[in-house]
Amino acid sequence: MDGLYLGLDLGGTKVAVAVGDDEGNLRGKAVQPTPQGDGEAVLAGLLGAADAACRDAGCRLDQVKAAGVGAPGPLDLGRGIVLKAPNLPSVSGFPLREKLAEGLKVPVFMDNDANVAALGEHRLGGGRGYRDLIYITVSTGVGGGLILGGQLYRGRGAAGEIGHLIVQIDGPLCSCGNHGCLEAVASGTAMAKAAEAELAAGEGKSSLLANGRPATGATVGEAAQAGDPLAGKLVARAGAFLGVALADLVNLLDPELILIGGGVSRLGDLLLDPARAEMAGRTLGGRTCPVRVAALGGMVGAVGALVLAMDGLAG
Amino acid sequence: MDGLYLGLDLGGTKVAVAVGDDEGNLRGKAVQPTPQGDGEAVLAGLLGAADAACRDAGCRLDQVKAAGVGAPGPLDLGRGIVLKAPNLPSVSGFPLREKLAEGLKVPVFMDNDANVAALGEHRLGGGRGYRDLIYITVSTGVGGGLILGGQLYRGRGAAGEIGHLIVQIDGPLCSCGNHGCLEAVASGTAMAKAAEAELAAGEGKSSLLANGRPATGATVGEAAQAGDPLAGKLVARAGAFLGVALADLVNLLDPELILIGGGVSRLGDLLLDPARAEMAGRTLGGRTCPVRVAALGGMVGAVGALVLAMDGLAG
Repeated sequence: MDGLYLGLDLGGTKVAVAVGDDEGNLRGKAVQPTPQGDGEAVLAGLLGAADAACRDAGCRLDQVKAAGVGAPGPLDLGRGIVLKAPNLPSVSGFPLREKLAEGLKVPVFMDNDANVAALGEHRLGGGRGYRDLIYITVSTGVGGGLILGGQLYRGRGAAGEIGHLIVQIDGPLCSCGNHGCLEAVASGTAMAKAAEAELAAGEGKSSLLANGRPATGATVGEAAQAGDPLAGKLVARAGAFLGVALADLVNLLDPELILIGGGVSRLGDLLLDPARAEMAGRTLGGRTCPVRVAALGGMVGAVGALVLAMDGLAG
Repeated sequence: MDGLYLGLDLGGTKVAVAVGDDEGNLRGKAVQPTPQGDGEAVLAGLLGAADAACRDAGCRLDQVKAAGVGAPGPLDLGRGIVLKAPNLPSVSGFPLREKLAEGLKVPVFMDNDANVAALGEHRLGGGRGYRDLIYITVSTGVGGGLILGGQLYRGRGAAGEIGHLIVQIDGPLCSCGNHGCLEAVASGTAMAKAAEAELAAGEGKSSLLANGRPATGATVGEAAQAGDPLAGKLVARAGAFLGVALADLVNLLDPELILIGGGVSRLGDLLLDPARAEMAGRTLGGRTCPVRVAALGGMVGAVGALVLAMDGLAG
């Protein structure tokens, strides 16, 4: 073993860290709740999880050659700063990369969580061997990363905002201020809002969702899996909107593979079959593209950050 | 002068040929009507225009090292065949690349017209020096080409179909069979259809368009430039739909520059100001991107084909 790498994934609810070797083998990992508090508290939580992952791998932190970190965006990649993290406001403006490099005493490479996840799936997950690959995470929000020509494509630094493709020009208001973004109609949050609205209007009948507690993306998904008609309709509708965005992506980028990750992707074909059907009906000449659930699950961010570290040191 | 290259642009109404040298200097050109008839007749027309362009350049055809050709798609790039050209049905299935290579006695490189135009603008037009650049042609249809990381991006061969981005989910039927594609709401054809519909319904008043002749993209554009209120409204609406697609492109690809070519782009800011305004209102965080009229005008296809020939021989 020539050297080890650390991959850190900073999420709104959990931090995950992976330890891997030169050949991309996973040697250890740790998942811990994201600490409450300011940037320093979050930093301490990341360093603690890194220690725990090293213990799990049976190695010492000083065997690590480089680290990667995926953080919620938008980021200032040049300075290594989280500019604004709606789900993690305490780190907005915090010089995360520099502080991690001080704490870990190795070079640290940083990118946004969806880009990092795309890297992870491409190199060590369901996208191995593909040249043109699109990764989409469907969770409380919707994000994405583009692997084009075998490389992460960043544009001027902010490419891959698949959640803000406009799928319904006069659709619901999105958190970004625009109307009808994919995120506003197909995220877990959007499904929960739609469930609440249908129940409040007395339009939808649901024994599972109409239980006095507010719906969430998770409860809608669970109800859909249990056969609840309202929840099933809402998941299918979200899937169809996802399919409109997939058609845009196929028409524009003609990728070899599209991988769907994030919590909502656990619904599998309940979400993806309506998406595939809508996509196929809307692509030019009916051309198609495989659409699959991503392979790395909850560790995708940490594994991707490992790749970021390896590439960063190599490049 | 080490060697010369030919760039051929096969369009539905005209063929254009450019002669250029190793350094990308234009040495001569010819533009002729596209011959009526079968594939052989079209081939003869292309070869005749190539001769005329060589005479204009003061050179002989045997000084040419390679040729490029842009053709209306979809194409089979591997075999060099036009699969289906709605505006030029006589060449569908014709082995254009092979026949041109026989006729010109040089290697011939082929790609679809919008990709070739993107190459031309990137290397010898308004996009020189840009790494990530999107070219959109707005004409009777809408097409596009993507320069990503300094290279033409093809995906599996059919990338860049910007005209089939879905901007209005329940919008008008597109020639592709989908609803609400950019082409179905923002092309010259779409503007003409909208003008006819508004006049027929008695909804739009227009002294310039209501003259007993069917509206075309050109007549709507001319009327808009002359201050006709109905035509102005229709051009602004097409521009706003174009802006929705531009927002998608900026959110997804974060390019440095977007260039708009094709006949409708001659309307300049009448079309582009509404497009820029809609784009700015719909991009994540209000991020923006310069949107300009392309530089090469009607010669863009031939000049791009010249680049295709130079790159093909080099690569």
